[in-house]
Amino acid sequence: MRNIVVSEAGGPYIEDLPVEIVERKGIGHPDSLCDGIAERISREYTHWCEEHLGGALHHNFDKVQLVAGEVSVRFGGGELLKPIRIQIAGRGTPYYNGQAIPMETIAIEAARAYLRETMRYLDPVKHVIIDCFAGRGASELIDIVHQVTANDTSFGVAHWPRSGLEEAVYQAAQYLNYELINQFPIGEDVKVMGLRQGNQVILTVAVPFIATRVHDAAEYEEAKRGVQEALQRFVSSLPALEGRTVRVDVNTADHAKRGDFYLTLTGTSAEMGDDGAVGRGNRITGLITPFRSSSLEAAAGKNPISHVGKVYNVLALEIARDIVARLPEIREATVYLLSQIGKPLDQPLIANAAVRVRSGRLTPGIQEAVRAIVDEHLSNIHQVRRKIIAGEVSLF
Amino acid sequence: MRNIVVSEAGGPYIEDLPVEIVERKGIGHPDSLCDGIAERISREYTHWCEEHLGGALHHNFDKVQLVAGEVSVRFGGGELLKPIRIQIAGRGTPYYNGQAIPMETIAIEAARAYLRETMRYLDPVKHVIIDCFAGRGASELIDIVHQVTANDTSFGVAHWPRSGLEEAVYQAAQYLNYELINQFPIGEDVKVMGLRQGNQVILTVAVPFIATRVHDAAEYEEAKRGVQEALQRFVSSLPALEGRTVRVDVNTADHAKRGDFYLTLTGTSAEMGDDGAVGRGNRITGLITPFRSSSLEAAAGKNPISHVGKVYNVLALEIARDIVARLPEIREATVYLLSQIGKPLDQPLIANAAVRVRSGRLTPGIQEAVRAIVDEHLSNIHQVRRKIIAGEVSLF
Amino acid sequence: MRNIVVSEAGGPYIEDLPVEIVERKGIGHPDSLCDGIAERISREYTHWCEEHLGGALHHNFDKVQLVAGEVSVRFGGGELLKPIRIQIAGRGTPYYNGQAIPMETIAIEAARAYLRETMRYLDPVKHVIIDCFAGRGASELIDIVHQVTANDTSFGVAHWPRSGLEEAVYQAAQYLNYELINQFPIGEDVKVMGLRQGNQVILTVAVPFIATRVHDAAEYEEAKRGVQEALQRFVSSLPALEGRTVRVDVNTADHAKRGDFYLTLTGTSAEMGDDGAVGRGNRITGLITPFRSSSLEAAAGKNPISHVGKVYNVLALEIARDIVARLPEIREATVYLLSQIGKPLDQPLIANAAVRVRSGRLTPGIQEAVRAIVDEHLSNIHQVRRKIIAGEVSLF
Amino acid sequence: MRNIVVSEAGGPYIEDLPVEIVERKGIGHPDSLCDGIAERISREYTHWCEEHLGGALHHNFDKVQLVAGEVSVRFGGGELLKPIRIQIAGRGTPYYNGQAIPMETIAIEAARAYLRETMRYLDPVKHVIIDCFAGRGASELIDIVHQVTANDTSFGVAHWPRSGLEEAVYQAAQYLNYELINQFPIGEDVKVMGLRQGNQVILTVAVPFIATRVHDAAEYEEAKRGVQEALQRFVSSLPALEGRTVRVDVNTADHAKRGDFYLTLTGTSAEMGDDGAVGRGNRITGLITPFRSSSLEAAAGKNPISHVGKVYNVLALEIARDIVARLPEIREATVYLLSQIGKPLDQPLIANAAVRVRSGRLTPGIQEAVRAIVDEHLSNIHQVRRKIIAGEVSLF
Repeated sequence: MRNIVVSEAGGPYIEDLPVEIVERKGIGHPDSLCDGIAERISREYTHWCEEHLGGALHHNFDKVQLVAGEVSVRFGGGELLKPIRIQIAGRGTPYYNGQAIPMETIAIEAARAYLRETMRYLDPVKHVIIDCFAGRGASELIDIVHQVTANDTSFGVAHWPRSGLEEAVYQAAQYLNYELINQFPIGEDVKVMGLRQGNQVILTVAVPFIATRVHDAAEYEEAKRGVQEALQRFVSSLPALEGRTVRVDVNTADHAKRGDFYLTLTGTSAEMGDDGAVGRGNRITGLITPFRSSSLEAAAGKNPISHVGKVYNVLALEIARDIVARLPEIREATVYLLSQIGKPLDQPLIANAAVRVRSGRLTPGIQEAVRAIVDEHLSNIHQVRRKIIAGEVSLF
Repeated sequence: MRNIVVSEAGGPYIEDLPVEIVERKGIGHPDSLCDGIAERISREYTHWCEEHLGGALHHNFDKVQLVAGEVSVRFGGGELLKPIRIQIAGRGTPYYNGQAIPMETIAIEAARAYLRETMRYLDPVKHVIIDCFAGRGASELIDIVHQVTANDTSFGVAHWPRSGLEEAVYQAAQYLNYELINQFPIGEDVKVMGLRQGNQVILTVAVPFIATRVHDAAEYEEAKRGVQEALQRFVSSLPALEGRTVRVDVNTADHAKRGDFYLTLTGTSAEMGDDGAVGRGNRITGLITPFRSSSLEAAAGKNPISHVGKVYNVLALEIARDIVARLPEIREATVYLLSQIGKPLDQPLIANAAVRVRSGRLTPGIQEAVRAIVDEHLSNIHQVRRKIIAGEVSLF
Repeated sequence: MRNIVVSEAGGPYIEDLPVEIVERKGIGHPDSLCDGIAERISREYTHWCEEHLGGALHHNFDKVQLVAGEVSVRFGGGELLKPIRIQIAGRGTPYYNGQAIPMETIAIEAARAYLRETMRYLDPVKHVIIDCFAGRGASELIDIVHQVTANDTSFGVAHWPRSGLEEAVYQAAQYLNYELINQFPIGEDVKVMGLRQGNQVILTVAVPFIATRVHDAAEYEEAKRGVQEALQRFVSSLPALEGRTVRVDVNTADHAKRGDFYLTLTGTSAEMGDDGAVGRGNRITGLITPFRSSSLEAAAGKNPISHVGKVYNVLALEIARDIVARLPEIREATVYLLSQIGKPLDQPLIANAAVRVRSGRLTPGIQEAVRAIVDEHLSNIHQVRRKIIAGEVSLF
Repeated sequence: MRNIVVSEAGGPYIEDLPVEIVERKGIGHPDSLCDGIAERISREYTHWCEEHLGGALHHNFDKVQLVAGEVSVRFGGGELLKPIRIQIAGRGTPYYNGQAIPMETIAIEAARAYLRETMRYLDPVKHVIIDCFAGRGASELIDIVHQVTANDTSFGVAHWPRSGLEEAVYQAAQYLNYELINQFPIGEDVKVMGLRQGNQVILTVAVPFIATRVHDAAEYEEAKRGVQEALQRFVSSLPALEGRTVRVDVNTADHAKRGDFYLTLTGTSAEMGDDGAVGRGNRITGLITPFRSSSLEAAAGKNPISHVGKVYNVLALEIARDIVARLPEIREATVYLLSQIGKPLDQPLIANAAVRVRSGRLTPGIQEAVRAIVDEHLSNIHQVRRKIIAGEVSLF
């Protein structure tokens, strides 16, 4: 019998708050790059161990630091003066039953592969030096992670659905990263900051332009206008913002007279001026939402088998989504999962689903339906692990 | 006229929640060490600039990564096999008006000084390699920070007072770090995890023992019992936990038969197995409080003049404390400060104080009193800067 | 008028010595790789400066350190556990007339290009981490090197022709590096140690085999026999060894019963166990010849315009070769060039050509002919610089 | 029966050469620092192994690279902008019989201790970052070095006594490093370049002055004059230069009008502009003597038990010294020792002592006396090892 509590959500509904701010760092932001690299290392390491050793090994690659490079850019081109340095830290198991595990090689290759697949203008060989400082863990933890009991009192939390502003910020960033990048000379390190005051929404967007593809200030201004208009059209048509006004501002720090434009060689501010680190960007929801409860835990890079902070955060989101998807009478669900030291992960100390029912009344029927969904997900906790290892879950 | 809103707190009171978890990483935890080093660098850099250039320069030293070392420990002693490596990243201004600023030297010396003053058994020369990878910032940001307008839509949030559990966790960690360390052979990397279920509180505490001062398992068990009893006595007498039962567990992962004890050479798990990074540990309140709103922003290492994320978080806490101190009818205050791009920091977009009045009624009189306190603090925002630079504010 | 002295060679003729030892490290030896990288950096840096600034800039990239990696190899395959690390040091000019010079980028790209072009099985991306620590030189030296006066009392020395043993060792190594590598599964890190006692020559050869292309001990032994036989045939037919017996030994440290074979993944011992550094391998003659005068100066990486140690060593070899080529009556020439502080490089303090005349008599006519050749080369000293920059001169 | 050959020296006597150049890099030169550090690491590692494991372990720490720092100096003071970085490479045995050997710790501590004991103004903590990249050797070499057979055809060579110029250069550098440093505000990174043309000797000396102890150009010029005069007096009175004229020039690159003075913060050019590496400075004789046969082998850092290149070079010098000391009829001895792969080190392939007899005639009696001395030293080869490990032998 699992300790599952279904309760009514307390506090004001997010859409009723007078002010709301939400941020998303795009996939090319230095912090996002570190998150992506950390998680890729964890996955490749796990794949290697499963293939060669028949199971996953304990690891924790949730520390990756990016040291910004130095460039000289101008319209039409530029030069890399100092490469970006990526310093992989973390703990793994270098030997298992006498067999050496090529931990450093896996880590560095994973980082490079991730950059190659994520970034269009950043060359992971030419623009980046990747070094690995990862070592072995404390001896008591070096073990196959088959005993998947919680080794910590930790917790996961997630809500669903996104608020209107959250949806707009998330979609705008994705639209830039996956659509507009095909139409405009822009890079991946976009940043969308959303502010809602009452029914007025402002999205302040930073978009790096690619120096080699923009030849003068006029071209820059035209492309910037193009991006602004396309994005304005896109968000204006989002159902999530229905009934609200929305304005998109692009690169507000530009100052044409002083010659200040957001021009990059590689599409990311990591090339100059912005360092990055794991766990310092988007939460598992893909957003930074200061007005919501959220876990500080950096999920990326942690081992997907036994690390509560990772598994419970992912699972909480899966459950919240499923509740809302399967029970139309529920407007919003927030799921908390609290681990119990020494107990299997499918036996949390408490699993709490706080739901906001459209009718305002949490009936025993709804309560039972929610409880069943939570229970089902906990029973199938191994599926979450599988999805994480397969890379089917986005963590930032 | 500042945009200050005083409202009634929504949602359930923290003490009424059925479950609460709170954590504090002690001052010797790898993440705390990184926070402390980052902030110390920011302060020493600012001091240097003020003394030699007559003002502060833009900087951002909020990226420091600690790569764990490797040791071989046993009762009575041990050896460092691989030193801890501290990798300082971040951005500063290496030249100003033709004068070179010894940024690397300042950073490394600051890190070493911080470790020396914080850690009793860790030798910052013998046990640690400190290297600096910090570079210069993007050109547009290299400037004296006299124009203190917000360059970002960012926010700060803090509540006061601490809940009973929060207070207990915080005090327990401090008691270990500043009192029990004088009586027992223990190090600074303590961790206190507090769980409250109804009125039952459990504090799960991890305390590293010093190998050179503990000669066998019997001595270890005795010292551990001593720590447990002293801490149990201490927390049992805390007013904050009045009316609640409390149990202290120490080093629950020990397993005497398997020879597992929490034994260290240097008093921190950074010596083996635990990496660290800035912004991954305690919030500005000194705690990790998943059931509270809190900023993800890493305050440590950021420049204390213009960085909204840092200044507003510190200020919000100061205001909340002051409201509760000066207005006895207020049981709890939560303060949100939201910046307005391009405007001076003393003109936030919105300053919201959500208060919980003991009587349950937020009268216009109280409202005005709260508003005045908020306004006063915003007027004197430079005092917060001074306090940060002087090191009078704890950030983690 | 240049101070040119032509004298008779003193001491015994090299071929008359009872014992002679000569060594060549192949192009894939860790020390040779460092030399090759250092020189390539110097050349690419000079090309960049000439193209963008209209002239060469002072630099000194004669410090490159290679830290060996770690592999696990077996017949048929293997894995890289730890990449090779290449640490580029040296001094350059990062800014010239306000223009930034992408020194780090040039250096790293040059190193990678060199490895790619030199090594067949070593992947400069997958197997190697290249980092650059080069900085700027002492201020007084940062300048365009147009004033090509000697800044040091330094010297160059070279002899020609090679002795029979020297020729055999050199040719054997080149035959392995450029011919046999096409026929056998071997790598570039060959080492040929030649020993002559009277008329008996033994060449002890170390040849790394490529693990992925050799599937068992039998195959290894067969390939090794093949290499030995081919090389034995090759050196037996060398005119340089006429009248002498020669024996070739390959991989004498092998021990089949203990499972010791010289098997590598990448064709170089740098993958495990052998570090490298500039100036620690072959001299400018391509050989290590303990029984000859030779310069300790590391030529590779130094600037080819003003660095006496580099220019004079190359020039001395050019002169010695030319004397022997143009004057058939001369059996051997050794050329010393000594610089004169503050004077142009074409005005050495002394240029001494010590020649061994076949007839035994150094006539005034021969003397004058030699003097003229020396003078001609000094007059055209800029040609040597050109050749070095163009990469037409081998330095190791 | 050892293969010992005693022969008459061929070629002209060094004192009869028309031109001679000799150089010594002082103990504070970046290359000398690297040599000193490498050797200290080898010794400390050996001491540790002897004490804890009962014997020496294979190692090779002959790769250490120094990357120059960056300073801003002026009369009266200065600041370190970028610390010197010392990158220790090399191979050792990290585990022996299951016991971990704290190789990194030993190496770093040894480097720091060496700097502390050698340099008066360089603070090994404040001015230097020491990092260790040393790894384990190729598996076949990881073993206690009790079987001390030669694993290579290598050789050692040394002559004795020094020529007059050699003695003058050596003594001048030592006088600066150990005497004048007590009387003048100078550092350890002196460089003495000696040039003899016929009977005229010029010593060109570079001496770093200490910025904090010299307050203006006048003080500098006075101190420089003091150094010049003291050194001129010292070398003028050396018996080694009897019958020759000698002139001492100090800091010839100074240019008072342009403000060029040789001013340093730490007493070494490593603080800015000059990198260093092992094996790039003085030979085992303490000198760089281009007109003499000498080994290219870097002795410093190699293991003192089995490494032929190290042991034979030291031994050759000991033998040459002893021959000259014990046989007054011998004016000069040059000793060559050639190893024989797979044979014990006391059984060289050939030991050749080429002696120059004062009377001009090598009698059978002298020949036998020389042979006996060579034989005696070879029999006692373990004494050379002991002396190296005890640090009684200078290697550079």
